[in-house]
Amino acid sequence: MRYLVTGCSGFIGSALTERLLSHADEVVGYDNFSTGREEFLLAARAHTRFRLVRADVLDAATLGESMRGVDFVYHLAANADVRFGPEHPRTDLEQNTIATHTVLEAMRQNGVRRIAFTSSGSVYGEASIVPTPEDAPFPIQTSLYGASKVAGEGLIGAYCAAFGLQAFIFRLVSILGERYTHGHIADFYRQLRREPRALHVLGNGRQRKSYLYVQDCIDAMLVAVERARDAVNIFNVGCESSCEVRESLGWICAALGLSPRIEYGGGDRGWVGDNPIIVLDTSRIRALGWKPRLTIREGVLATLDYLKANPAVLDAR
Amino acid sequence: MRYLVTGCSGFIGSALTERLLSHADEVVGYDNFSTGREEFLLAARAHTRFRLVRADVLDAATLGESMRGVDFVYHLAANADVRFGPEHPRTDLEQNTIATHTVLEAMRQNGVRRIAFTSSGSVYGEASIVPTPEDAPFPIQTSLYGASKVAGEGLIGAYCAAFGLQAFIFRLVSILGERYTHGHIADFYRQLRREPRALHVLGNGRQRKSYLYVQDCIDAMLVAVERARDAVNIFNVGCESSCEVRESLGWICAALGLSPRIEYGGGDRGWVGDNPIIVLDTSRIRALGWKPRLTIREGVLATLDYLKANPAVLDAR
Repeated sequence: MRYLVTGCSGFIGSALTERLLSHADEVVGYDNFSTGREEFLLAARAHTRFRLVRADVLDAATLGESMRGVDFVYHLAANADVRFGPEHPRTDLEQNTIATHTVLEAMRQNGVRRIAFTSSGSVYGEASIVPTPEDAPFPIQTSLYGASKVAGEGLIGAYCAAFGLQAFIFRLVSILGERYTHGHIADFYRQLRREPRALHVLGNGRQRKSYLYVQDCIDAMLVAVERARDAVNIFNVGCESSCEVRESLGWICAALGLSPRIEYGGGDRGWVGDNPIIVLDTSRIRALGWKPRLTIREGVLATLDYLKANPAVLDAR
Repeated sequence: MRYLVTGCSGFIGSALTERLLSHADEVVGYDNFSTGREEFLLAARAHTRFRLVRADVLDAATLGESMRGVDFVYHLAANADVRFGPEHPRTDLEQNTIATHTVLEAMRQNGVRRIAFTSSGSVYGEASIVPTPEDAPFPIQTSLYGASKVAGEGLIGAYCAAFGLQAFIFRLVSILGERYTHGHIADFYRQLRREPRALHVLGNGRQRKSYLYVQDCIDAMLVAVERARDAVNIFNVGCESSCEVRESLGWICAALGLSPRIEYGGGDRGWVGDNPIIVLDTSRIRALGWKPRLTIREGVLATLDYLKANPAVLDAR
């Protein structure tokens, strides 16, 4: 099998690329390095079966050329910055929605029939059912990021119906682990390195999410692609349990041996469009035989260990 | 109140514009006349409180200028050609999704806070619940048109959350009536004018939809805008009853005094992405006091009468 991975130098993309290289005939990595990092690809680039294309997903010509002979596309490239969406209200539209259309068109024009897409639990908006199942009531979008992902899902569904593609759509919770340089763990660690006695927390610290370790996330994707059979296969991917930000904060401080003074920003969410509770019903993916190997606490501590060993990734941001 | 109506020279847009002019301080009509028609605006242009802007919705500069001083936007401009989506797979993305973003950005930049948007019952894909309520299970999109409308809804929801807009989203069934030049009535009438003894029908004629008369549709929109109070108000708009294409065919032939030989194209749908059953649960809009005044049969015959009196609209297509 020949794969193309968009966003191959990102947090999840680089880990997926390495996993695919263990059995693929070829992996074409595609990235514009706008947020991806060269060093995340060091292991992949040691493989002869890896080929890197440095280009933007919106560059339809280069993307089309790169897809020749490809059997399967993992479309992970995206603007993943949820929080600052309102400061640049066209970014999610371009880098997520229009980019996904560009990927689908390149696939159609090159006869590539199968796609996996990293969507997000944020497509549920403020869900009325928690844990939220894939067939939850038709949600109202509450963030530009979620809106761009639901638009991407819609395009994929329509291409499957019109052009006979098969799709695997993954609605991910927050993913943690090695190479994760965003989110609350990086934020807390960055603050505590600068000032170990004080920590500012967005919201009231009670935001609750079912974080998942990155290798468990990739396991879920690979299991689904191998076993799911519908034209459009949609899976929530996350831990069954969940934790509040302040619990995670406790694990982080204990691991660092710190007892900082905590200042909460207040309100029930970190920012406008931040859903304070994202806990997904994952029984559909579990029914395929998948389950996570790491607990949320283990995932948080793995992320922290990575940041401690690689502090440069925080400075570079 | 000062209104801006995108798609003001279209089938629904021109009828809405006339209705708004009965009480508005000003209506700015905005259209690129790609599918709209000059003659549909004759009545509107007789009003001194009507101002026409000939431009594309994707022309952000002109749209922004046109929005100065506007209180409320009715965003109706769209590619409404559902059937031929797969032949031009970027059209719905550009004219519906990206265009809706352009409208929202122009509103944000000009401090316009309220928007009504004509979405579609096709956002439900192949609904598992019929009649389909607004909070039906999260659907999988089956047409590029539906995907573009669900993307537009998502953008509107996100803008409401991020920037404090108020929105009225109308998921319309097929709308009928004066100035309707698409769909099965125009198709049948065009065929029967050419050859009164034979009629070709797409699919098996059993496609079932809850068609609505255009003035009843506009009543629903005006009632909702006046009475609904949420930030994001979503309403199905359609008849409670429904009819099959072959029933409508019977009414049309009887009205024309014809008994053509009917050839069915076969299959359960008219084309790829055509949902054979679109019947919406309209209890939400009915709870606001709205109900349609015309039956489906009356709406079909009103459309036919219009086409008989204005055959030039068929030739022009």
